[in-house]
Amino acid sequence: MHQRVLALAFLPVLLLITTSYAQEVGPNYAHPLEDLDKDLPFSQPVTFAHLPWERCLAVSHSTRLDIAILGFPYDTSTSYRPGARFGPRGIRAASSREKKGRSYNTVWGVDPFQDGGLKVLDCGDIPITPFDAAHAFKQMEQGYRQVLWHNTSEESRWERPRVLSLGGDHSIVLPVLRSLKEVYGPISVIHLDSHLDTWDPYRGYTGIASEQSAITHGTFFWHASREGCISKGTSIHGGLRTKLFSPKDYLIDKEFVGFELIEAHEIDDIGVKGIVEKMRRTVGDTPTYLSIDIDGRFRLEDPLVNC
Amino acid sequence: MHQRVLALAFLPVLLLITTSYAQEVGPNYAHPLEDLDKDLPFSQPVTFAHLPWERCLAVSHSTRLDIAILGFPYDTSTSYRPGARFGPRGIRAASSREKKGRSYNTVWGVDPFQDGGLKVLDCGDIPITPFDAAHAFKQMEQGYRQVLWHNTSEESRWERPRVLSLGGDHSIVLPVLRSLKEVYGPISVIHLDSHLDTWDPYRGYTGIASEQSAITHGTFFWHASREGCISKGTSIHGGLRTKLFSPKDYLIDKEFVGFELIEAHEIDDIGVKGIVEKMRRTVGDTPTYLSIDIDGRFRLEDPLVNC
Amino acid sequence: MHQRVLALAFLPVLLLITTSYAQEVGPNYAHPLEDLDKDLPFSQPVTFAHLPWERCLAVSHSTRLDIAILGFPYDTSTSYRPGARFGPRGIRAASSREKKGRSYNTVWGVDPFQDGGLKVLDCGDIPITPFDAAHAFKQMEQGYRQVLWHNTSEESRWERPRVLSLGGDHSIVLPVLRSLKEVYGPISVIHLDSHLDTWDPYRGYTGIASEQSAITHGTFFWHASREGCISKGTSIHGGLRTKLFSPKDYLIDKEFVGFELIEAHEIDDIGVKGIVEKMRRTVGDTPTYLSIDIDGRFRLEDPLVNC
Amino acid sequence: MHQRVLALAFLPVLLLITTSYAQEVGPNYAHPLEDLDKDLPFSQPVTFAHLPWERCLAVSHSTRLDIAILGFPYDTSTSYRPGARFGPRGIRAASSREKKGRSYNTVWGVDPFQDGGLKVLDCGDIPITPFDAAHAFKQMEQGYRQVLWHNTSEESRWERPRVLSLGGDHSIVLPVLRSLKEVYGPISVIHLDSHLDTWDPYRGYTGIASEQSAITHGTFFWHASREGCISKGTSIHGGLRTKLFSPKDYLIDKEFVGFELIEAHEIDDIGVKGIVEKMRRTVGDTPTYLSIDIDGRFRLEDPLVNC
Amino acid sequence: MHQRVLALAFLPVLLLITTSYAQEVGPNYAHPLEDLDKDLPFSQPVTFAHLPWERCLAVSHSTRLDIAILGFPYDTSTSYRPGARFGPRGIRAASSREKKGRSYNTVWGVDPFQDGGLKVLDCGDIPITPFDAAHAFKQMEQGYRQVLWHNTSEESRWERPRVLSLGGDHSIVLPVLRSLKEVYGPISVIHLDSHLDTWDPYRGYTGIASEQSAITHGTFFWHASREGCISKGTSIHGGLRTKLFSPKDYLIDKEFVGFELIEAHEIDDIGVKGIVEKMRRTVGDTPTYLSIDIDGRFRLEDPLVNC
Amino acid sequence: MHQRVLALAFLPVLLLITTSYAQEVGPNYAHPLEDLDKDLPFSQPVTFAHLPWERCLAVSHSTRLDIAILGFPYDTSTSYRPGARFGPRGIRAASSREKKGRSYNTVWGVDPFQDGGLKVLDCGDIPITPFDAAHAFKQMEQGYRQVLWHNTSEESRWERPRVLSLGGDHSIVLPVLRSLKEVYGPISVIHLDSHLDTWDPYRGYTGIASEQSAITHGTFFWHASREGCISKGTSIHGGLRTKLFSPKDYLIDKEFVGFELIEAHEIDDIGVKGIVEKMRRTVGDTPTYLSIDIDGRFRLEDPLVNC
Repeated sequence: MHQRVLALAFLPVLLLITTSYAQEVGPNYAHPLEDLDKDLPFSQPVTFAHLPWERCLAVSHSTRLDIAILGFPYDTSTSYRPGARFGPRGIRAASSREKKGRSYNTVWGVDPFQDGGLKVLDCGDIPITPFDAAHAFKQMEQGYRQVLWHNTSEESRWERPRVLSLGGDHSIVLPVLRSLKEVYGPISVIHLDSHLDTWDPYRGYTGIASEQSAITHGTFFWHASREGCISKGTSIHGGLRTKLFSPKDYLIDKEFVGFELIEAHEIDDIGVKGIVEKMRRTVGDTPTYLSIDIDGRFRLEDPLVNC
Repeated sequence: MHQRVLALAFLPVLLLITTSYAQEVGPNYAHPLEDLDKDLPFSQPVTFAHLPWERCLAVSHSTRLDIAILGFPYDTSTSYRPGARFGPRGIRAASSREKKGRSYNTVWGVDPFQDGGLKVLDCGDIPITPFDAAHAFKQMEQGYRQVLWHNTSEESRWERPRVLSLGGDHSIVLPVLRSLKEVYGPISVIHLDSHLDTWDPYRGYTGIASEQSAITHGTFFWHASREGCISKGTSIHGGLRTKLFSPKDYLIDKEFVGFELIEAHEIDDIGVKGIVEKMRRTVGDTPTYLSIDIDGRFRLEDPLVNC
Repeated sequence: MHQRVLALAFLPVLLLITTSYAQEVGPNYAHPLEDLDKDLPFSQPVTFAHLPWERCLAVSHSTRLDIAILGFPYDTSTSYRPGARFGPRGIRAASSREKKGRSYNTVWGVDPFQDGGLKVLDCGDIPITPFDAAHAFKQMEQGYRQVLWHNTSEESRWERPRVLSLGGDHSIVLPVLRSLKEVYGPISVIHLDSHLDTWDPYRGYTGIASEQSAITHGTFFWHASREGCISKGTSIHGGLRTKLFSPKDYLIDKEFVGFELIEAHEIDDIGVKGIVEKMRRTVGDTPTYLSIDIDGRFRLEDPLVNC
Repeated sequence: MHQRVLALAFLPVLLLITTSYAQEVGPNYAHPLEDLDKDLPFSQPVTFAHLPWERCLAVSHSTRLDIAILGFPYDTSTSYRPGARFGPRGIRAASSREKKGRSYNTVWGVDPFQDGGLKVLDCGDIPITPFDAAHAFKQMEQGYRQVLWHNTSEESRWERPRVLSLGGDHSIVLPVLRSLKEVYGPISVIHLDSHLDTWDPYRGYTGIASEQSAITHGTFFWHASREGCISKGTSIHGGLRTKLFSPKDYLIDKEFVGFELIEAHEIDDIGVKGIVEKMRRTVGDTPTYLSIDIDGRFRLEDPLVNC
Repeated sequence: MHQRVLALAFLPVLLLITTSYAQEVGPNYAHPLEDLDKDLPFSQPVTFAHLPWERCLAVSHSTRLDIAILGFPYDTSTSYRPGARFGPRGIRAASSREKKGRSYNTVWGVDPFQDGGLKVLDCGDIPITPFDAAHAFKQMEQGYRQVLWHNTSEESRWERPRVLSLGGDHSIVLPVLRSLKEVYGPISVIHLDSHLDTWDPYRGYTGIASEQSAITHGTFFWHASREGCISKGTSIHGGLRTKLFSPKDYLIDKEFVGFELIEAHEIDDIGVKGIVEKMRRTVGDTPTYLSIDIDGRFRLEDPLVNC
Repeated sequence: MHQRVLALAFLPVLLLITTSYAQEVGPNYAHPLEDLDKDLPFSQPVTFAHLPWERCLAVSHSTRLDIAILGFPYDTSTSYRPGARFGPRGIRAASSREKKGRSYNTVWGVDPFQDGGLKVLDCGDIPITPFDAAHAFKQMEQGYRQVLWHNTSEESRWERPRVLSLGGDHSIVLPVLRSLKEVYGPISVIHLDSHLDTWDPYRGYTGIASEQSAITHGTFFWHASREGCISKGTSIHGGLRTKLFSPKDYLIDKEFVGFELIEAHEIDDIGVKGIVEKMRRTVGDTPTYLSIDIDGRFRLEDPLVNC
């Protein structure tokens, strides 16, 4: 809103506040009082898009909410380069220019922060031990549930909040899908990733040295499928450009886990439009979980990705 | 505190919560419930040392507080390399390993977070325009006052909160000293800095192109002195190793502004002990403002400092 | 040219110089004399493409010139990440491999350094105060004019030099357009940028805290338009992929400022060829100012751009 | 293979080894014995794709081999930014995720490490003096030959090993082509590079200051052509987007050296498919050397390339 | 040794080799043959100080050895910033300038690579799962033992090889001490570290969320002590400058674990000489394990250490 | 000088200029005219400390000069990490805050830019081929001479200019000493360096593969000594902390080349004062060349030095 006009419109009120507060804050208050409780792009402790931060994971937290940002600072299940435990912190810092107000999307014609009066919160991060993967997966499932079972606001037509999860290595999807299964049953998955992530830990995948190490950022979808979390036939995996242990790996992805596959090079033949159509056709109207691995995007944007 | 003992002591309570809350959060709650409202070093939106963050700058904020962390994301008065507006964000990130609990200092024998029950808050940042230095100095003075005039807690023996300011370029000290003058009158200053920062903007200093540009990160103490904010004869400037426009600059620092001087090379002759004694002798028991320029520390630690 | 042949052709002259100069430079001159006044890609103080540098901004400078490189080391009007004051220095360093001689462009079939014998100079940088935006805009306008009013060489068919401006934050375009207006009247603008930069500072844009702060790197075209510097209807803005405060922002860009708009995603439908045609159709034969924001190019090339 | 199954299958053997070895390695061997001679992606001294490393350059080395990885840590013939002597080390580090086993290529339907039982080795690096380019070219030619004249394995249908050379600046191709000429005579070259690298050192190219400096990373193909190493008419140079000294440079590339040319912008008109066809049509079935300059790939991937 | 002299001395032999080998390697061998099996500082796959690398961890490996370099690419027990799994790789790269030959130490007057003819090997890295800390500790103990129980060479007066372990996070010391206990019984430890690393995981230390997470890079010495691996009264911990949970932590370090303590600031009073004396007095002639945390050195050298 | 006072003092003149020039530069000159020919720290093509840059290496250059800054962008004689060819560029950029005016040194009590009216110039860089070390050494010697034989100004008491050389790898000292010998005969050298740089290329040093490669950044002082450039007995080498091939290397440094030696650890015993005294005692009043290797300074300041 036009600040100068605002200043004029509220001038008497502001002056009033100035006067009364000035006495409280002491003598010689030199300058006309602005309320300085504002966020500039570069100011304040960093939350996602300057959203209010509430500690939603506390057992005592009972605020209604519709969209939750939730961080998973976890990287113990990464097979190569760790560090993704700082992912939520990095994503929040990168969102500093985003903010309610300058948020109208011209292509979709909507303003996600304004429309419908939904309650949007940054719920902070789940505290996840890096020392013990087995316990960490329990903490992640429990933390996600504590957010997922919140009540939504009265403006919302959803029964359960939507959660935007910030990773973390990709294995965080397993406890997320375990939680979602309680609400939605087996759910459709759109998986954008250059790698399979459905490697069978017992047949081919070389990362396994103990039972615990069977769950990694390359095998979590295999486990999720075996546990009945993924809806076969309405799920799709796009962006594939990985090498395989053997052609059988594709069969597992397709038949055992149930993904429709799109290899990265198909974009040359069917274009973005063709890919979107293939996805829509597969997923239909089913409830869907969207999982984006950073290497599923154009590789150049993320030159140091732990592929 | 010993967590396992904690778990045992509160077990009935926890179970109770688990039971009642589990029903609220839905069926099939698989894992024993921990309250996940905890901060690990790498988790959560970043505040200073994981302190609670309150928006103390709001006119409506009236919580009592004893020690406030306050950020000044400002760099428009920097003569060479800008970027210090991200200083408060950087300092907060660097403080991630610090936290109430692991905070006992073996040399001083105190725990600043525990002793005396003081109320310590991260008050966030003052929103400061980078576009208009004149207005920015008003915002900084006003923001600092809004914190400084808070009431202290009942445990405190101070009348006013102590404020730990995070810069920002060094010129932020001018509005700070202007605010402190209302409470303490002219105040002693311990200034640790390799440069003078008392350059006379009208005689020698080459940065001035307009009246507004007379206030910079190299001249703010000259202005503070002229405005009566600094106590002459009980203030001291340590760490000098700058070049001068002419020997007259030292005279201004000493006689006009009123600093005792310690050049960096004196440490070779009188040692740390001698320097500390010189400081104590100069400052005595007067109320004192401590101002640390990052280049006042050993240069190597901060290789990219904007000197 | 073939140096060995050169050496042979000029051998007598070189020997002559060698002899006479050798006596001047002293005895025992061990090696055959080369004239070492040459620039290798990695040698010499850095000018743009190893062009000669003249201090064109001096009042006394009166050399004729046709194409001037002019740096604007200014970033005080940046709303987020500063540092663009080092832009001219960075662009010059990045141009080190460019040089008169290896400069024939195979697509256009021309050599910009050779053809027509134009006088091309690096005019250095305008000294711009970072401390006072109001004064800085005056310095930029004045500095640009001092170059723009130079006489052109006899070989040139232009009345005024062409200036290649190196930013600096995007607000430098305002003083440039103010200067150009005196020569060309309202001028057509091709604006390649992902953001609008025509935000109305008084209706929506949140950066304004004082009158001075109404001019920023997001509002300068709004001011330029109000001051009559931009030719409406023959100007075009390409590459839009910004979020808006509200759909009204597009109306301002189109109707108040007068830009034809091209959103970034249109390239999928009409291709580079379609976009070029749209630009040509809009601009026609009018005198045109080309303004390129670095985020108007493919984003990936410039991962740290201050968007 | 499924390690757990493996463990079970070989249990008796393992126990046997454990028992006997345990006595050798001392008392109290606490844990069931795994053979720890394995490579994880992040472990071990770095070879290319965890291949075995043999010192094939030793005169005494006589192992048969089919595919050799050979490093050329050389950058003395670089005209601008040196450092490519660390190229082989960097490429090996970047190959850490690659390994025999997870190596099936879905597009080509082959596994280069498995199929046919070829013998693949990392032969290490040629030791190349950086101090004397003339001697360095001899060392490179000699080192390449010592690998090239190895006998191939019985499984191979090749008479000579294939060598994958890791640069190093691009001039390393000259000693490679000199060596190949002895085996294949003039060979077809597919050259992917944005620059010509066929500059005539005596007519135009400015790098020459002495006879030795006529051979650089921009002239090596000119020399190779003059020495009869390149098959004219069946060679092709793709990806051109360089500026020239004059249009004559293209004539040299085409007529003197004998390259078919593809400029980078042709991809907009004929697509990847058209380019591949043009290459196939030119090269046909002739023995071909593939030379990839890192700037021949999409520029964005390699932002710091020494262009 | 003087290479030119070498060349002359061995000329007949070299010529002989040249001749016979040249026929083997093909016709037209252009240059006089050097044996190129040499390592320059920047060449070859990277081992520690260009030492030969043998796969000592293989059950079948039985070469005698006296000094082994052994990497521990492990960081799962790090409480803050992971990445130390790349430590062995980084240390090896940093050792590239070191090499047998240029290895005479002027202060000690010895050449560790020459004197006594000891057998020194780079044994590579133990493959350690990052996914399961419990299994990882077994792998580390087992891997260390496989090296430790090698026979030493006949030149050596040691019964067991000395092992130079490259971390890895500091918790790798626990499996090392467990292994050493079998040979030496409780061993003296010199621990150079700014932190205690003897935190009681059950009383104070906040990292514990499950039984497995009681072993971290801050508690491993507490466990080692409880398991009888450390010799009380002859061990010493230098460089302390950490904050504590409470003063009781020092008591644990001294009385439970048995370290003599030296705080970092003591160097100001007793100097390097005093510290060395204190260490000698404490350790005496007992067999000693030296453990250096990178933050035990002067902090500035290692600005990004995970403290 | 006080700019405001300047503005007042010269106001009539400025107005005059404004008026007349304004007509020349066109109508509507909006702002009071400043002469913008000034350098701010961050503006202008980068010369050393904003000194004027003249192309002193041109045969036709005959300006008198007393102190010359001269760049040696050369790194072909580096045995490990190249890149020092960008050293002069880096040093110039790092000198941006230095400038005539703010140049009074408080410890020495002098202002090197003001006192005595000496003529100080940035002479740019010698163009040095990286492709041919033999030719490069000739270019360096010739370039240095062309500066050294300039006439000095009338204010100077020196017969020849003093040259401040910016490297470049350390071998650039050889052509410098060759040039100085013509003027001063054998000259005393103060060498601050952690390495010897007097390695005998034919006895021990492993870098030599050809006659040309005998001259490197580790052997140049050996050559300089053999050529009679160094005054034995009045030269001193400080900061030694290198490993040797054998103790004989020290003998060469002392007896063959003639350096007094100071090892780095001596500072613990005799202090800075003792070291300075040892240097003065050795050098006395002889003409002296000061050569500083960046690793001769405290190592921490330069963490990436090519040691």
